[in-house]
Amino acid sequence: MRGVAIAGVGLCSVGEHWEKSIRDLFSEAAIKAFDEAGTDEIDALYVSNMGSATHQRQLNLGAMMADALGKRGIAALRVEAASASGGVAFHEGVKAVASGLYNCVLVGGVEKMSDVLPAEVKSSLAMSEDQEYTAYTGITKVGLSGLIHRHYMERFGAGAEEIAMFAVRGHDHAVGCPHAQYPFKTSIERVMASPMEADPIHMLECSGIGDGAATILLRPSDEMVDGVEVASTAVATDVYYLTERPDILTFGAVEKAAGKAFKAADLSNGDIDVLEVHDETTITGVISLEDLGFVEKGKGAAFSAEGGTAREGEIPTNTFGGLKARGNPVGATGLYQIAEIYLQLQDKAGPCQVNDADVGLAENLGGLGSTCAVTILRRG
Amino acid sequence: MRGVAIAGVGLCSVGEHWEKSIRDLFSEAAIKAFDEAGTDEIDALYVSNMGSATHQRQLNLGAMMADALGKRGIAALRVEAASASGGVAFHEGVKAVASGLYNCVLVGGVEKMSDVLPAEVKSSLAMSEDQEYTAYTGITKVGLSGLIHRHYMERFGAGAEEIAMFAVRGHDHAVGCPHAQYPFKTSIERVMASPMEADPIHMLECSGIGDGAATILLRPSDEMVDGVEVASTAVATDVYYLTERPDILTFGAVEKAAGKAFKAADLSNGDIDVLEVHDETTITGVISLEDLGFVEKGKGAAFSAEGGTAREGEIPTNTFGGLKARGNPVGATGLYQIAEIYLQLQDKAGPCQVNDADVGLAENLGGLGSTCAVTILRRG
Repeated sequence: MRGVAIAGVGLCSVGEHWEKSIRDLFSEAAIKAFDEAGTDEIDALYVSNMGSATHQRQLNLGAMMADALGKRGIAALRVEAASASGGVAFHEGVKAVASGLYNCVLVGGVEKMSDVLPAEVKSSLAMSEDQEYTAYTGITKVGLSGLIHRHYMERFGAGAEEIAMFAVRGHDHAVGCPHAQYPFKTSIERVMASPMEADPIHMLECSGIGDGAATILLRPSDEMVDGVEVASTAVATDVYYLTERPDILTFGAVEKAAGKAFKAADLSNGDIDVLEVHDETTITGVISLEDLGFVEKGKGAAFSAEGGTAREGEIPTNTFGGLKARGNPVGATGLYQIAEIYLQLQDKAGPCQVNDADVGLAENLGGLGSTCAVTILRRG
Repeated sequence: MRGVAIAGVGLCSVGEHWEKSIRDLFSEAAIKAFDEAGTDEIDALYVSNMGSATHQRQLNLGAMMADALGKRGIAALRVEAASASGGVAFHEGVKAVASGLYNCVLVGGVEKMSDVLPAEVKSSLAMSEDQEYTAYTGITKVGLSGLIHRHYMERFGAGAEEIAMFAVRGHDHAVGCPHAQYPFKTSIERVMASPMEADPIHMLECSGIGDGAATILLRPSDEMVDGVEVASTAVATDVYYLTERPDILTFGAVEKAAGKAFKAADLSNGDIDVLEVHDETTITGVISLEDLGFVEKGKGAAFSAEGGTAREGEIPTNTFGGLKARGNPVGATGLYQIAEIYLQLQDKAGPCQVNDADVGLAENLGGLGSTCAVTILRRG
């Protein structure tokens, strides 16, 4: 297979875009990527989205967005893997170019949730776990995360504040990020004083509801100079139900996807200079650090709280704020993550820039860790 | 890219499966494919489905079905392109094997609509055209097809019965098909006497509502003997809105996808021995014959009515009944079509068998022809 590189990215600011449709948001992000790449030539389009069927009562987004971009005729489709839709669509897009079947592929994610009833958003998030056995009991997705969070504290003796610091770090990093939904600092006191969302998870430990779109333009690497190469992408799954897993504190899909991605790229954890993890809540961020292999099991919360994930820390993590502070427009989130790694490796991260990053990794979760996409990028 | 072959297929009977969940149906079809192939080894799973978010309130079907099959850990995702989901997922699955990234890929589609309110099914079909500009006017998807149907009659002087004969042919072919929803003959009199669904389309010119699942197991062709090879797959899109097309009687996506597929396979219409077209209503079947290049524009209805599409005709079409008589479990339909071509080329079509078929083509439409997937198979 041939090498694949990123020719440009386009990011809408994450926020409440009451005046824009999913078509508007998607087009805005696509045009930004075309502008950066200096070309709008594409022969295939991968759209990632989770909830448009229930949120906008809209399907067939591939053809819709191809048409919106004036690219009528090209191959286009939608990929859905709950909140991992973005990372998984990227995997498909990379394969499309690597195989030689397509030459210029746009992978774009979009999600719009502000103008949807909160109960409907909660319900659509619950659809990523099992309706028949789990959701009908009434537990929300954050409720399920609460079980993990509580168990993590008990087994490893982690403090509530230690885990919650993951959110504070995210906010630290989002300051100055032009596309972040919450580009301001917060404090551990404010996080701990926020209402309980699902005991022991506080509201300010959860990623919020927002609208956004992110696009990435892919080309064969031999047609690029000064680009960022896709070193590898991998997708893996895990036991679907939280209750059936041998250990709810380990995301098997993360271990497997990371293992495959590292192997394919011939790299290891020590090679990674900048990292994006899926901190849907603080505890999923903490466990991700561990299951990706950056920290020993049970040490993730302390590692983050002590600054290991800070911009100048051992492994700068979620350097634009992560899901918590950049925002989590679900079906687009995985592409925000990959685009942010790209910006770091291109020295285009502005006030969020880390030093001397040559290789970066993004981890995107769907369901309660039942799907994981891992992407590794490196300077070309 | 390496060659890809079909190692086995699995088809649930299309019908009203009140007692089975989407997980049950999918698993049943997958196990049948594993049985035929003599192996259940897979390293990636592509699930095609249109409406599970609104019909079952369920997303993340990739991880869900991987788990249901006991294949926890593999890469898995869902592809959605409205009623073209199956053909498009097949395109992705073939690419996955062709690229060398995966070795054994299962592509499976599932849809369950019997236990959903009819208004909800209609609404979810309308989601494949535009909500904002089209569906909110109240027109159904069949209503849009009615515009095409009426215009076709007027421009080409086609008779209502001539077009309706497409449904009668489908029923002729379904007799004896073990997986068909309506495996019995009908008559032009019965079709014309059925209620108007959307003038001038009669109820018996429309595909019905049904549940089903179809799976196809893919392997590299050099690992197969006596297999059926994937000669090519192609996906294309068209202007999204019916009202903005230069000519509503031409499906541009079909012309483009067919052109790409024929070119990639180095074949032409004359090489095709057996055909599956997307007769969601009779008129979409008729126009498909034309835009695929088998009949001159405006002659499709007469060609079919006069027997050109019959089992012993010039180009045997929809040899298991098509969407009308085999049934249309939307997200799975494209895979039923491809599996049926496979059965013909393997001489496994039983009472539906055509003679001496070496090459077959399946055409799968999404939206109102805004997405098209074309697949060409040939004896290995």
